[in-house]
Amino acid sequence: MAVYNQAESEHIFIGKLEHGADLLEELTGVCEEKNIRLGYVVALGAVRKARLGYYNQETKEYKFFELNKNLEITSLSGNISLRDGQPMVHAHITVSDSNGRTFGGHLAPGTIVFACEFIITALSGPQLTRDHDDQTGLPLWKI
Amino acid sequence: MAVYNQAESEHIFIGKLEHGADLLEELTGVCEEKNIRLGYVVALGAVRKARLGYYNQETKEYKFFELNKNLEITSLSGNISLRDGQPMVHAHITVSDSNGRTFGGHLAPGTIVFACEFIITALSGPQLTRDHDDQTGLPLWKI
Amino acid sequence: MAVYNQAESEHIFIGKLEHGADLLEELTGVCEEKNIRLGYVVALGAVRKARLGYYNQETKEYKFFELNKNLEITSLSGNISLRDGQPMVHAHITVSDSNGRTFGGHLAPGTIVFACEFIITALSGPQLTRDHDDQTGLPLWKI
Repeated sequence: MAVYNQAESEHIFIGKLEHGADLLEELTGVCEEKNIRLGYVVALGAVRKARLGYYNQETKEYKFFELNKNLEITSLSGNISLRDGQPMVHAHITVSDSNGRTFGGHLAPGTIVFACEFIITALSGPQLTRDHDDQTGLPLWKI
Repeated sequence: MAVYNQAESEHIFIGKLEHGADLLEELTGVCEEKNIRLGYVVALGAVRKARLGYYNQETKEYKFFELNKNLEITSLSGNISLRDGQPMVHAHITVSDSNGRTFGGHLAPGTIVFACEFIITALSGPQLTRDHDDQTGLPLWKI
Repeated sequence: MAVYNQAESEHIFIGKLEHGADLLEELTGVCEEKNIRLGYVVALGAVRKARLGYYNQETKEYKFFELNKNLEITSLSGNISLRDGQPMVHAHITVSDSNGRTFGGHLAPGTIVFACEFIITALSGPQLTRDHDDQTGLPLWKI
């Protein structure tokens, strides 16, 4: 069965990330600055290059790969919770190149903003905290 | 012209689906358990395999296909309304493989969760109900 | 650093676009009709054909391309703000074909609705307005 908590929408933050910044670091920085410990994020825009992850479900290890070209962000969807007491943005992203071909994966540090507009919804409710999950090897929520 | 209703955000449910479960069934189960009859859902995570649909606009029939490999969910976006008196989750999904290549379509039963984090926003407002639409052949909202 | 405003969720509009209409125009029409000047939008469905843009970060010009086939909308994510005093929908889209292959980019006029279900969240808060940004060449928010 699914396990989940009920939460309420509290505030929304809408704005843009800095040109040349690291996409994941910048989103995390907003959460730190506004003390957002639970929430979700969407964004669109473009990146200079992307670094994405794919989780190998057999070896339980991430494989990271770089896309060294300018790309549109066609979707970015993520959530915010705590890991080791700090806000952590967990986001997945789809990007597209000059021919409209798309690539996707787990958003990793090393994805560099060209222009990015984001919306973060901060939630109030029971805190979700990540911890090691034996079955998947991932840092999942303990609910 | 577009046709639509005004609604209000009521509650948010944030959590994770069960490892090994059917993704669409699990999301539907949350809606049944919490009596969510109007709303929307986003999710991210990974699946053991995916089963997706493509609607043939000429023959007005869905074609379903399986992706028998482990994949990241790079986006999942859907809505919740009633069909035949029961909550129905209508969701589309984009997934990516170990090379970052992406695939997408209508989320069908047979997509198996590896790990999945979801956010469902339950709405209050006029009920939307699906019924057969002659023009498209799809079960669309009667507004 | 990221720059952003705090806003609050005000109303939600949930409905469907007209079969055969221009996707971007129809979404913009809802914003005009309901006087939505700040917000965000998600949608799913299918299109008869798509016209997408890719922004060339070197030449600072959009390249547009058409996908002349029936496609699923696997994600559509956008925001609403003002440009030249009028509501402007800025959206990116991912679409998939009969083989599940995906394509994506900046949603441009010329993308024709087969069936499309949308959710627009209207926000209250400081108005965001687009104006020319020298560094990127894009119409970005002045915050």
